Amino acid sequence: MTSYRSFRELMAQGELVRVAGAHDALGATLAQQAGFQAVWASSFEVSASRCLPDASILTMTEYLSAAANMQKAIGIPVVADVDTGYGNNLNVAHMVHEYEAAGITAVCIEDKLFPKVNSFAATSHDLLPLPDFTAKLRTAKSAQQGDDFYVIARTEALINGLGVDEALERCSAYADAGADAVLVHSKKKDEREVVEFLDGWDGRRPVVIVPTTYPQWSAAEATKHGVSVVIYANQGLRATVQALRDTFRTIYDDGTSLGVESGIAPVSDVFALQRLDDWLALEA
Amino acid sequence: MTSYRSFRELMAQGELVRVAGAHDALGATLAQQAGFQAVWASSFEVSASRCLPDASILTMTEYLSAAANMQKAIGIPVVADVDTGYGNNLNVAHMVHEYEAAGITAVCIEDKLFPKVNSFAATSHDLLPLPDFTAKLRTAKSAQQGDDFYVIARTEALINGLGVDEALERCSAYADAGADAVLVHSKKKDEREVVEFLDGWDGRRPVVIVPTTYPQWSAAEATKHGVSVVIYANQGLRATVQALRDTFRTIYDDGTSLGVESGIAPVSDVFALQRLDDWLALEA
Amino acid sequence: MTSYRSFRELMAQGELVRVAGAHDALGATLAQQAGFQAVWASSFEVSASRCLPDASILTMTEYLSAAANMQKAIGIPVVADVDTGYGNNLNVAHMVHEYEAAGITAVCIEDKLFPKVNSFAATSHDLLPLPDFTAKLRTAKSAQQGDDFYVIARTEALINGLGVDEALERCSAYADAGADAVLVHSKKKDEREVVEFLDGWDGRRPVVIVPTTYPQWSAAEATKHGVSVVIYANQGLRATVQALRDTFRTIYDDGTSLGVESGIAPVSDVFALQRLDDWLALEA
Amino acid sequence: MTSYRSFRELMAQGELVRVAGAHDALGATLAQQAGFQAVWASSFEVSASRCLPDASILTMTEYLSAAANMQKAIGIPVVADVDTGYGNNLNVAHMVHEYEAAGITAVCIEDKLFPKVNSFAATSHDLLPLPDFTAKLRTAKSAQQGDDFYVIARTEALINGLGVDEALERCSAYADAGADAVLVHSKKKDEREVVEFLDGWDGRRPVVIVPTTYPQWSAAEATKHGVSVVIYANQGLRATVQALRDTFRTIYDDGTSLGVESGIAPVSDVFALQRLDDWLALEA
Repeated sequence: MTSYRSFRELMAQGELVRVAGAHDALGATLAQQAGFQAVWASSFEVSASRCLPDASILTMTEYLSAAANMQKAIGIPVVADVDTGYGNNLNVAHMVHEYEAAGITAVCIEDKLFPKVNSFAATSHDLLPLPDFTAKLRTAKSAQQGDDFYVIARTEALINGLGVDEALERCSAYADAGADAVLVHSKKKDEREVVEFLDGWDGRRPVVIVPTTYPQWSAAEATKHGVSVVIYANQGLRATVQALRDTFRTIYDDGTSLGVESGIAPVSDVFALQRLDDWLALEA
Repeated sequence: MTSYRSFRELMAQGELVRVAGAHDALGATLAQQAGFQAVWASSFEVSASRCLPDASILTMTEYLSAAANMQKAIGIPVVADVDTGYGNNLNVAHMVHEYEAAGITAVCIEDKLFPKVNSFAATSHDLLPLPDFTAKLRTAKSAQQGDDFYVIARTEALINGLGVDEALERCSAYADAGADAVLVHSKKKDEREVVEFLDGWDGRRPVVIVPTTYPQWSAAEATKHGVSVVIYANQGLRATVQALRDTFRTIYDDGTSLGVESGIAPVSDVFALQRLDDWLALEA
Repeated sequence: MTSYRSFRELMAQGELVRVAGAHDALGATLAQQAGFQAVWASSFEVSASRCLPDASILTMTEYLSAAANMQKAIGIPVVADVDTGYGNNLNVAHMVHEYEAAGITAVCIEDKLFPKVNSFAATSHDLLPLPDFTAKLRTAKSAQQGDDFYVIARTEALINGLGVDEALERCSAYADAGADAVLVHSKKKDEREVVEFLDGWDGRRPVVIVPTTYPQWSAAEATKHGVSVVIYANQGLRATVQALRDTFRTIYDDGTSLGVESGIAPVSDVFALQRLDDWLALEA
Repeated sequence: MTSYRSFRELMAQGELVRVAGAHDALGATLAQQAGFQAVWASSFEVSASRCLPDASILTMTEYLSAAANMQKAIGIPVVADVDTGYGNNLNVAHMVHEYEAAGITAVCIEDKLFPKVNSFAATSHDLLPLPDFTAKLRTAKSAQQGDDFYVIARTEALINGLGVDEALERCSAYADAGADAVLVHSKKKDEREVVEFLDGWDGRRPVVIVPTTYPQWSAAEATKHGVSVVIYANQGLRATVQALRDTFRTIYDDGTSLGVESGIAPVSDVFALQRLDDWLALEA
């Protein structure tokens, strides 16, 4: 029921790619309907949907299952957040085999140690030595079967407070190792260190950003500075938390769902998202 | 990390039990935090989270996985919506083995033919002949290993337009066959046929209702008429759809997430739901 | 790590295709090493590996997982035994979406009622009315995304004692409905009714047989009568049962594994099947 | 359908416990039928069944699924091989939550670094620093919900060539940290270093051995030296490889399965293992 393009094809169009985070097919479909060009299968979201921390606790099997279920439901590419690649080079190779076999066309690997913890957590964020991470990238690129598979190398140098020079050096090495794009992550409240990175970047590979902590920096401005991909990584999850909290509390306090009915989607909207009529036609 | 009671224990308290529908651990946890006493692992919600119809398309494996992931995250019981039991008596017995082994303490089986379609869909809703469904109930009760497992028998007689007498006759037979409670489902815009059912019911088993289409009938009123359990089956899902749609559209149209930030939960709320600090303390 | 051809490509070669049954990647790999051209992902084997009956008890999720794990490990195509298609037309369409997305290139659907029971079990084997099964076949062919996907229609007419004419009529209708091949199953101790079928068949589609109960009929003889595919469906499983039974009993009775060592594969053989050296080279 | 005892109960009987390795419910059931008192859910076997190396490549999800499917089929306890615990303390805690929730009553954690490689592979086998592994054991014991859960601490000190003193020191610390038993693994061709360990062990905890490379040392002799549990870890797998290889080659070479029929279990034996008659009686 889908006829999606790969992420590589999408990047080849040369325009800004906007990506929304999701953790299930429903969120992915609503992102597509809103106009986003790709979906970020976010480890933070997937682990939050299980009420478990984003700390390499869920397994590749579970993250892949979530990503594959999203990809099967939509006609735009999923970019799978694969954390550190789940271990060493062997795990990375296996990850690529499994994700590619499941129809995922892009993954993003980060240069932290396994097990990693979410970048916004108040804990250490030690990086893998540079040669070890470039080995992972080379392993990933060697493991892919088709030409289409796309590997984004994400540096956590700024998250770890190592500065823009370290981020630039690492991303340059990642490009040398075969990364198809680089993602520079920042938890600063403004975009300055990201801009500094972009000013120093030689442009050999597209740059991906995740402006969770600096939302005031618009996609249009980011594009001017050379950003190719913007990921809105977890706003959907956070909207869901707020909506569920409000809805459940109102129903519980009121002793009826009457008070929430006007603000929530009708059952018929859900049927439409499920494409119920198309399916029922098969038995007609 | 959980210390939940079984659904049977909960019912033994003799007070109205209010239940919220969910499809993942996040929704289940927020339902618990709002005060609900149990969580409905809704087939409609689980299938909608996959953008597939609620029509016996997802498998028992997938529904069980969702229910078990909810139960592991919360300290209140999950009531698993198991549709028709996934086939015949053999499937029902296997279902009970699997759900009980996964720590689920209550299931709800309905008397429609397999494969079934969601009760609100504009299609036929044929019922299994009464003796075949009572055989399923007896099979389920024989298959359980412990005394605690709880089987709710759901009749779709009113959904199928067969009238209150048929619903009463069926529920009476279901009680005879060992059902621990009965659920009478209605898609009418008001509660009248449910009240008629309750007036005719001999009270041998607790009655469960799902007031999706008649939300004006409050829990307090339902209790007065003899209802023991009220399930708010899908409002959380519908709130999620609305929230995701609004959030994604605003971000996409604005070219930034700035406009949604104040209305969505902060990242720190998600960390709290993930119990991140408790987990990180394990490595301290 | 694999570069398999599709089953359709294999069939296009025009020579007899010999297929061995398996339930995991290990069996599939050993079948490939022995020379078989394809692997039958047998529901009987997969359910037996779980010690559950071959009676539509395991779910599509579980059968697909087994088939996909086999396909990922080998360089020859898997033919997935999908029983009745797991329900009605909706289930069939979903099955095709899921199997095709998982890289399976051929499935075999049978014309029994859901839930079905293994053909050799002493129980009833009622068939779906012909128009309902041809609807399933048309649904399957419409649901496939690529041209490569291959659907084998299996008739249980002979298993159900309906005779060769019924089998021929059904297979003819199945070809009209788009089946890429037909499988005629027999539980007779000799090949006579299968030969009678072959003599009456117009040859519009390749014929598949499963000579479990008539092993004296060789592949060479079958080919002469027009058979295109022979499936040795469960001998591997039965050899495994015998080997495990003997091995475990000897170890238990002897109080040591010394007595079995010379008759079992050394650990190094298992390492070779796991391609351990290739994998370890990734970390060298 | 099972009524198994926990591994702790079994150990409390005070007699030698003999354990057979398996990777699926079929092998586990045949081990039980042969008389073994418990089943080892072997990572080596489970990974071999996927034709992937025993090198922390498969995920906890996959190992747990295999172990749980075995436990559901048998009436004796499964001892789950959980390798290193799949990461750090957080992973260990999550592992205990998940295994215990799935009905597993005993796990065995080893003191190698994650990702680990099979002990018989010709590669390095570096150990985790002692305090880090005792932290894992304390974490595991704190994470269990019930009193029954049993944690075996496995040292790879001998595998790594660190000698018996190191093995003793580590096992002593593991007992202090709460391990319920210790497993001392050796890849020597005779039992001498294991005997040396046993002679030096203070007996505070039961000792488990895995005599894969020294099969001449019988269970009776091991018992005399103080061994409490003997695991025959992979002979079933190796017998399966041999049987499948022989069977498939014979069928392929002969062009018929006639030549293997007398040496393999009949279909009726498989039906008995599937308890087909018991299941069909549910629909009678």
